[in-house]
Amino acid sequence: MASPGSSFWSFGSEDGSGDPENPSTARAWCQVAQKFRGGIRNKLCTLLYGDWRLRCPEAFGEWFKRVPTGHLREDGLCLQLSQGDVNYAFLHSTDLLPACDGERPTLAFLQDVMDILLQYVVKSFDRSTKVIDFHYPNELLQEHNWELADQPQNLEEILMHCQTTLKYAIKTGHPRYFNQLSTGLDMVGLAADWLTSTANTNMFTYEIAPVFVLLEYVTLKKMREIIGWPGGSGDGIFSPGGAISNMYAMLIARFKMFPEVKEQGMAAVPRLIAFTSEHSHFSLKKGAAALGIGTDSVILIKCDERGKMIPSDLERRILEAKQKGFVPFLVSATAGTTVYGAFDPLLAVADICKKYKIWMHVDAAWGGGLLMSQKHKWKLSGVERANSVTWNPHKMMGVPLQCSALLVREEGLMQSCNQMHASYLFQQDKHYDLSYDTGDKALQCGRHVDVFKLWLMWRAKGTTGFEAHIDKCLELAEYLYNIIKNREGYEMVFDGKPQHTNVCFWYVPPSLRVLEDNEERMSRLSKVAPVIKARMMEYGTTMVSYQPLGDKVNFFRMVISNPAATHQDIDFLIEEIERLGQDL
Amino acid sequence: MASPGSSFWSFGSEDGSGDPENPSTARAWCQVAQKFRGGIRNKLCTLLYGDWRLRCPEAFGEWFKRVPTGHLREDGLCLQLSQGDVNYAFLHSTDLLPACDGERPTLAFLQDVMDILLQYVVKSFDRSTKVIDFHYPNELLQEHNWELADQPQNLEEILMHCQTTLKYAIKTGHPRYFNQLSTGLDMVGLAADWLTSTANTNMFTYEIAPVFVLLEYVTLKKMREIIGWPGGSGDGIFSPGGAISNMYAMLIARFKMFPEVKEQGMAAVPRLIAFTSEHSHFSLKKGAAALGIGTDSVILIKCDERGKMIPSDLERRILEAKQKGFVPFLVSATAGTTVYGAFDPLLAVADICKKYKIWMHVDAAWGGGLLMSQKHKWKLSGVERANSVTWNPHKMMGVPLQCSALLVREEGLMQSCNQMHASYLFQQDKHYDLSYDTGDKALQCGRHVDVFKLWLMWRAKGTTGFEAHIDKCLELAEYLYNIIKNREGYEMVFDGKPQHTNVCFWYVPPSLRVLEDNEERMSRLSKVAPVIKARMMEYGTTMVSYQPLGDKVNFFRMVISNPAATHQDIDFLIEEIERLGQDL
Repeated sequence: MASPGSSFWSFGSEDGSGDPENPSTARAWCQVAQKFRGGIRNKLCTLLYGDWRLRCPEAFGEWFKRVPTGHLREDGLCLQLSQGDVNYAFLHSTDLLPACDGERPTLAFLQDVMDILLQYVVKSFDRSTKVIDFHYPNELLQEHNWELADQPQNLEEILMHCQTTLKYAIKTGHPRYFNQLSTGLDMVGLAADWLTSTANTNMFTYEIAPVFVLLEYVTLKKMREIIGWPGGSGDGIFSPGGAISNMYAMLIARFKMFPEVKEQGMAAVPRLIAFTSEHSHFSLKKGAAALGIGTDSVILIKCDERGKMIPSDLERRILEAKQKGFVPFLVSATAGTTVYGAFDPLLAVADICKKYKIWMHVDAAWGGGLLMSQKHKWKLSGVERANSVTWNPHKMMGVPLQCSALLVREEGLMQSCNQMHASYLFQQDKHYDLSYDTGDKALQCGRHVDVFKLWLMWRAKGTTGFEAHIDKCLELAEYLYNIIKNREGYEMVFDGKPQHTNVCFWYVPPSLRVLEDNEERMSRLSKVAPVIKARMMEYGTTMVSYQPLGDKVNFFRMVISNPAATHQDIDFLIEEIERLGQDL
Repeated sequence: MASPGSSFWSFGSEDGSGDPENPSTARAWCQVAQKFRGGIRNKLCTLLYGDWRLRCPEAFGEWFKRVPTGHLREDGLCLQLSQGDVNYAFLHSTDLLPACDGERPTLAFLQDVMDILLQYVVKSFDRSTKVIDFHYPNELLQEHNWELADQPQNLEEILMHCQTTLKYAIKTGHPRYFNQLSTGLDMVGLAADWLTSTANTNMFTYEIAPVFVLLEYVTLKKMREIIGWPGGSGDGIFSPGGAISNMYAMLIARFKMFPEVKEQGMAAVPRLIAFTSEHSHFSLKKGAAALGIGTDSVILIKCDERGKMIPSDLERRILEAKQKGFVPFLVSATAGTTVYGAFDPLLAVADICKKYKIWMHVDAAWGGGLLMSQKHKWKLSGVERANSVTWNPHKMMGVPLQCSALLVREEGLMQSCNQMHASYLFQQDKHYDLSYDTGDKALQCGRHVDVFKLWLMWRAKGTTGFEAHIDKCLELAEYLYNIIKNREGYEMVFDGKPQHTNVCFWYVPPSLRVLEDNEERMSRLSKVAPVIKARMMEYGTTMVSYQPLGDKVNFFRMVISNPAATHQDIDFLIEEIERLGQDL
């Protein structure tokens, strides 16, 4: 099969001029034109040669058809499919590679997909576009036919589905998207994720993911160095999210204390108790439920008014459990709580864990990023004394979803805890060093490649680049805090400068400002944030989260991890909350 | 900020001709040229205008520099980076979006990444390229510097890393890659995965993944219809791989029988016993270890010579467990075992599960795809009686990694089992139908979007397209079986036509053919497959798996899920095994 590349690149040198009336030049140019994107093909050729298709029909298969080029917008972006010459209505997925003549349509199709994606990327950062084009589930189900059928659709329809899907997508990279802990869209991370998809492999063995396995090794070691474990020693894995990382930590902690649990189950061990703060992530309870420990055996330790675990309460509850004959086996401290962004006092927790010989886990899914900052890493002082750490680069470090690491101080424990020696994967007579086959360290068999985007971003930004990003986000959070702390109509949920980028506040509409602080006011205040949020989504201008917590009614939780956000976007958020909430 | 798109698309209409000496035409052309890929820019402009940069310098920023175009190969593919005009050595990730002037370098950078990926895609299907360019871990660690540093690297280095990473990648889409159950590279699936990366969102709420959540709903419902549950009713989720899907099934089965286990743990329930065949996937044991059930409580049921669970042994072991006072709570039948590709007799298993009121799970991670084929779906007869089914479209259906579904017949059970009501995510006062917030159905909090690639492929292929793919793979397996079953030097591990695409065989080199069937021969035979496999990897010509199983020494397990494979590739595999193994 001739490579279309050859006609693409090798024209021109022999005829030397650009004479459009020279037939061989025309043909060469038309061959070039095949590779250009969308409408530019038509424009290019029509400009030079008139109806070029008539002059070099041999350069085009039956699937190149003339379609109007009138679908170009004034701003040059292609509103409809850029099907300038390729008539995708005549093509199906079976015409693409590995089909025998599939190379040309494949390159055209993937390039057109890419053009759709690039448009979306550019729009994502454009403040004049909506963050979200919101539709209710029933509307969205009715407006389009999403059903799966027996018969194939042509590639024109497939490209249309790509556009439709992105039309309704939340622009999570938009400078005014603040809804989750994971925001932003890093261009190098995105490129790396595209490459990961293209490589389409599995992390379980070096055999089929040599580079990715080595990069995981290098990256986890670097993360352990940053945590402060000597020489970066220890173990770790990238897992499918912080909840699973936390569950893995609980699993390993239990195994360390009672290795017989692997074979004999919980029946063979005394009642185990885990401790975590009342502000900790719900995944600790989920993990305990799954592992057969039970949610009743997760003791929630009291927090101070800033959401930090109170060490004296931790010690009291540990003693209480021991007095009952239970076995405290895990304390999960949180470095960066989900709502308040609080950092538990890790040094005090470490002392208690040491005293009572309890596994110390740090859930730094959200706060781990601050370890990259000279200015802010003190907030995690003591993390180096942990036995295990969850750290999600897909949150504060802006790595595309998903990318969550579990780091474990003791080497070999993950393997002992989880290995089952599947002989079809981990053959002992392979010809390379088997320590690079990491698949038996986790519960998963197949494991998605999550490391490459982090590694490539780290290469591109350097540690200093992550540091600058994190310092900037924290500065923006402080900027927001300083604006609203004394502004009319705002009440802070807790006092003092934010420690992370979480800024928690109520917006109090004018009608409520005059009310006494009683139940009716609380009840009315609880309805404010949901209405403003719903309006935000319907206007599509910005998105920020809200929730109740304990005895505190619905309040906004602003978080900033988005590298695209600026002071102006913070100003905009405040204006928007007031615009949408002043009549409530 | 002006869109570069406008200069790209809007030239030409006013000047009407192609006169290269007309300065405005030249400028317009140069503006066009900016968008073209790599070396074509130079060729295009140099051909028409000589040193075009001198004529329209205003069209280019300081980062457009002249570099030699001599890096084009004869076949037109760009061997080195296609940095025709953009000098990436002067650019860093901080120059890309969301940087203020980041649009132009971003589009150039992402396009160049895409060109690297497209080259890789084309090469993946080219039989004249290697499946693998194998290097030992230490070599690979030494040949390149993979370390992470404080300082950023420029985008030229980043693009180089992309090329290096792909240079050593296993071409999992290559027509001669047969190493795992997941092979092949589907172009629509790949496009969908790129889009998923670009949308960069999370499945936990409709709020931030509206389309993906709906597509998950539609797709899971369709899969349940195909399983045969009335009207496609039931529940389900896409999870990070078959091992996790199986663990989720075990978790839900336990909760269904003893809901108190969620709060009280295993201490509150009697000893639970799970049953699965001795050929089943090791994830069942991993799951039992994790859930606090213990691997000793997973009873392995005997298989017949084809690797199918023997129902009478299942019933015997259930009775045995009950006599000991244990509680049988789960039978996991396998539809498509990992090594033999065997289908357990699901109808007989279903009868036993019904009789003893045990949750019936079917691990159809590998075999589920056969449900798409009218010709082969009978092998899963009885699956419609299961309480839960694991089905991995990333295996036999060729969806990019990863894409694993757990389907559950009873609606609402997953939610009851796993929910923790995190108020910061699942606010009860949202303005849309909360049943679309699926995040509390699973252990994970954040969940990667795995559905879009399956959905888009299904649209593109139709059910009939999957059927054709699966029928073809099974036909290829039978072709292989027919060639080797009577061929000199081959011994089948089990008799009879393969039921799935697994073909298990020994290659017996000439020197062993004359030996008696004794221990020495077995010992020598056990070393044959590892050596041939190591040679395959060093030559890079093909890859196929091997393993021992029970009392059977190392044998090859051929599996075919790759849509690119043909009869000639099967012939090639046989020739290659003989070429590489005849001297052993």
